[in-house]
Amino acid sequence: MRPLPIRFVLLDTSHPGNIGAVARAMKNMGLRDLVLVNPRLFPDPEATARASGADDVLAGARVTSTLAEALEGCGFVMATTARERDQVFRVYEAREAALRVVEEARSAPPGGAAAVLFGTERFGLTNEQLQSAHALLRIPANPEYESLNLAMAAQLIAYETLMARRAAEPMAPVEREVPLATPAAMDRLYIHLQQVMDEVDFRDRTQSGIHLMNRIRRFLNRAELDANEVNILRGFLTSVQNKRRAAGGGTP
Amino acid sequence: MRPLPIRFVLLDTSHPGNIGAVARAMKNMGLRDLVLVNPRLFPDPEATARASGADDVLAGARVTSTLAEALEGCGFVMATTARERDQVFRVYEAREAALRVVEEARSAPPGGAAAVLFGTERFGLTNEQLQSAHALLRIPANPEYESLNLAMAAQLIAYETLMARRAAEPMAPVEREVPLATPAAMDRLYIHLQQVMDEVDFRDRTQSGIHLMNRIRRFLNRAELDANEVNILRGFLTSVQNKRRAAGGGTP
Repeated sequence: MRPLPIRFVLLDTSHPGNIGAVARAMKNMGLRDLVLVNPRLFPDPEATARASGADDVLAGARVTSTLAEALEGCGFVMATTARERDQVFRVYEAREAALRVVEEARSAPPGGAAAVLFGTERFGLTNEQLQSAHALLRIPANPEYESLNLAMAAQLIAYETLMARRAAEPMAPVEREVPLATPAAMDRLYIHLQQVMDEVDFRDRTQSGIHLMNRIRRFLNRAELDANEVNILRGFLTSVQNKRRAAGGGTP
Repeated sequence: MRPLPIRFVLLDTSHPGNIGAVARAMKNMGLRDLVLVNPRLFPDPEATARASGADDVLAGARVTSTLAEALEGCGFVMATTARERDQVFRVYEAREAALRVVEEARSAPPGGAAAVLFGTERFGLTNEQLQSAHALLRIPANPEYESLNLAMAAQLIAYETLMARRAAEPMAPVEREVPLATPAAMDRLYIHLQQVMDEVDFRDRTQSGIHLMNRIRRFLNRAELDANEVNILRGFLTSVQNKRRAAGGGTP
């Protein structure tokens, strides 16, 4: 998966574990441009542990002392916020924001990037830091408890950028190792089933007025049986018949 | 925000920190029904720390020793997976899956719930655990590094359920005159079926190495049987047994 030039910028992060978890969240969703502005502790074993298989993203993370340096080469800048609305910035919800960020990343010149800013775990971004942003991104949440963990927020946004990228791409074809049972095979199954139902005197006891066999057909059709599965059912029906005949039940 | 009856069931979780993080992720998105099946360590200070302000969700979490107990009262069951496709289950992507889960939760009878199952951090769900599911949920990710952290996966799914709830158009409820068969009723059906299979000497003849009964369970789960449909199948099985006994086949 070719990474789009989307840069995640973490400002003044307190917990190194969160940095590792963000690296993992990014790699999971096909992103890898991580910049850390004044992290309290980095590198740190806790960051490495939480990065899991994303140690390459963590190792590639740049550390800067100012936001301006972190944003070098960036065009569009989106800042995360907990605010629902703002007097000066447009507030996008995460899904819509991701579409915008992906679009901007696609249109970025070579070496350029679109950035997403994340503030501290406790206080988010300062007003001064917000001044570098073009728009705000808010993750919809439970109004009674909105405080998302930093790495969780990064995970959701990274996921939405992946979903936004894929929106334009064609869908994968349905692949089946075993083909779906043909309508003819299904008909033979139902005929066989009807025979056994007759042989064991299983009659329509429903009050509904809908014929029992139709109901069975409907839920077996719903199961979208493949050829092997139909064979299993037919094998079972044959066993029922053989056993009856061996026991002297005979054919009626 | 009124919580919808959506139950997150975590199986055999290794790290208590993940349990706390899941509780927080749920509360962030307005969910609160958490059940833990055989957690390795719980309660645990690490779980409490990671739960942050969601200690109420954590305190309300039930611990059970079996998946069957965890699913008491549940109708629809969605299992998380890393598979892109599956031979027996329909695989929904998280967004589409969340629409389905929300719909099912909205249509659940009083006291009922729709469930989402999460396996262990390392191996996910076992094939046996998958047998309780009606469908699978997969989170789209970078094909080169798909291994999402457990709590991150829970966060994404919880978020998608919130987004699904908020979808402007109120969705049509799933119209069922008859409720989905409970997991316990499905278990009784499979026990009955196994009895009859034994009585008619229907044994595993498949080459695939997958146990026959498991295959049957999976395609019947996929059919999402309602309570009446289970009764039809049980009625058929009882007819097979009665007929054999009447013909002198007897019980083995």
